Amino acid sequence: MSANHHERRRRVSDLLPPAGAEAILVTKPVNVRYLTGLVSSNAALLVTAGGQAALATDQRYAETARKVCADIEVIEERDTVGALAGRAGPARLAVEGHHLPVSEFRRVAALEGVHGDPLPLSGLVEGVRTVKDEAEIDLLRTACAITDQAFADVLAAIRPGVTEREIARMLHGRMLELGADKPAFDSIVAAGPNGSVPHHSPTDRPVAAGEFVTMDFGALHAGYHADMTRTVMVGPPADWQRELYELVRTAQRAGRDAVRPGVTAHDLDAAARDLITDAGHGEHFEHGLGHGIGLEIHEVPFLGRDKPGRIEDRVPITVEPGVYLPGRGGVRIEDTLVTRVDRPELLTQTTRELLIL
Amino acid sequence: MSANHHERRRRVSDLLPPAGAEAILVTKPVNVRYLTGLVSSNAALLVTAGGQAALATDQRYAETARKVCADIEVIEERDTVGALAGRAGPARLAVEGHHLPVSEFRRVAALEGVHGDPLPLSGLVEGVRTVKDEAEIDLLRTACAITDQAFADVLAAIRPGVTEREIARMLHGRMLELGADKPAFDSIVAAGPNGSVPHHSPTDRPVAAGEFVTMDFGALHAGYHADMTRTVMVGPPADWQRELYELVRTAQRAGRDAVRPGVTAHDLDAAARDLITDAGHGEHFEHGLGHGIGLEIHEVPFLGRDKPGRIEDRVPITVEPGVYLPGRGGVRIEDTLVTRVDRPELLTQTTRELLIL
Repeated sequence: MSANHHERRRRVSDLLPPAGAEAILVTKPVNVRYLTGLVSSNAALLVTAGGQAALATDQRYAETARKVCADIEVIEERDTVGALAGRAGPARLAVEGHHLPVSEFRRVAALEGVHGDPLPLSGLVEGVRTVKDEAEIDLLRTACAITDQAFADVLAAIRPGVTEREIARMLHGRMLELGADKPAFDSIVAAGPNGSVPHHSPTDRPVAAGEFVTMDFGALHAGYHADMTRTVMVGPPADWQRELYELVRTAQRAGRDAVRPGVTAHDLDAAARDLITDAGHGEHFEHGLGHGIGLEIHEVPFLGRDKPGRIEDRVPITVEPGVYLPGRGGVRIEDTLVTRVDRPELLTQTTRELLIL
Repeated sequence: MSANHHERRRRVSDLLPPAGAEAILVTKPVNVRYLTGLVSSNAALLVTAGGQAALATDQRYAETARKVCADIEVIEERDTVGALAGRAGPARLAVEGHHLPVSEFRRVAALEGVHGDPLPLSGLVEGVRTVKDEAEIDLLRTACAITDQAFADVLAAIRPGVTEREIARMLHGRMLELGADKPAFDSIVAAGPNGSVPHHSPTDRPVAAGEFVTMDFGALHAGYHADMTRTVMVGPPADWQRELYELVRTAQRAGRDAVRPGVTAHDLDAAARDLITDAGHGEHFEHGLGHGIGLEIHEVPFLGRDKPGRIEDRVPITVEPGVYLPGRGGVRIEDTLVTRVDRPELLTQTTRELLIL
């Protein structure tokens, strides 16, 4: 992927002068990974407007770095920021303001060789990461396929008496067996009234007949995250459950149908939200419609009422409306998909029909 | 644990005036968890020198927060920092300088109700977290027991032909089955020459007879991390392998024997390192001897030549010397243990003798 990484760094270089900088010190690990291929908890990368790059990492990762990043200089040094900050010379140095801690920022500003206060820039590399190349989408496709299959394989075990935590462990174990590196995030499994908490942590509460069970989970594959939610019924649904599910299913479909290059984040969110609001449940859908996904589980673009910007082509996002009724339960349906010129490509394949177990 | 959390917040309150602050805005998630019990990716906590506390989190976590943190005010607000920063009033506000990003720091400083520049403090809550209570040590004991058992259960499957990645997956799966919430960190499995990279990521390289295999892994249990490393032999060792292992085993034993309340981080490190240096391998042991462990996999105290401070009673740490020979392989032996007045309590129970599979 060296050629890819070089091209990615070039795109960062090109953005520096318009942002008011002539070099940037990249310290967020996932951004270092994106621009070099190196996976490390202690690495920093300097990229200049002129297209030069240097990587610093400590001895634990240095041997790997010299292999992975053969086309750039690798400096072996525990103080990775200190090793690089002064090398920008008189050039105006930017740092990742949304990531670099304030104490570290002040240390950098005082380092010998750093001229003037560094410029905190936020989200520059994340912006470059937004539109994915086909190799990245391939990795996401695999992550989502593992996720779909794990869901299918665990369904048969969801019956009265099994606990939220047991379901979470089964999903986790099955994703590993199917080749996931690990879960993309801590799974949410919420049964019955717990479903009214959008980010409920699995407990030892057993599932009972007549309850919704919401599962929000995904596989991590080669750094790329899958994200999927399904709410299923254990036993026959009551009328309110059937109606609630149908509302969310229709809203999720409307959201997916609105996905196309050029749509605004606001309009995409509204396509699903308006149906829920019209049904009288606006106050029960408080989070945004979805988010970008890739090397991070949540990344730009964020889809919501108050979110700026338009969605570009080849941007993987989630579409995940939900309705949460305090004390009763909730329904959320979430797919990972990719904007395409013609119609969105669904990476999540599992049915959105109500599954009654 | 509410009483515990209250006491923990009181210890933070007591440290504020000596540090030059009258309130602190805690934003690092693991520190918020330690002081409130709430597990959330978006929460902030304000603690004042007078002992007042208020928590802010968004609607995804608010219902849980009101249950878990029943003894403090819970504010439901997506901008958790914005909701709390102004409430310190004219009091000098501290922030977590080692965690709060510089852009967020500047936003806080400009908020209405924030008087003067906030004071970046680093490691104040981490300092309070260093000495563990017995309930925390119990959780670590369970995490380490799961880790020991997973190692024992996977040993039989380590034979020529199995890959590093397969071993990592087996350890992961077995830890889950034994009740771990998830792995405490991405497992390191390094076979043959890959063992010379202390933080090697598992690959599809198969294990061969005559090779060392180093496994560095651990279970996460209720937020607490286990950390263990063993190097085993696949097939009979050559003389250099037997000697290398014996050197590291002796050094690790010397390190453990030096663990007692009051020892300096430097002396503890030296107890193991001197043996390795005397054997001519000083340059092949470049990392520190170990680190504190608890709600984070790496936390204070850090043990190393250049590390300040003394180790207190009831501090869980790792002791993990290693020798890494480029191109040939490496050996590391790591236990998690707790300082006690009499002798250290070993949480890791697995033998340190060379296992020949």
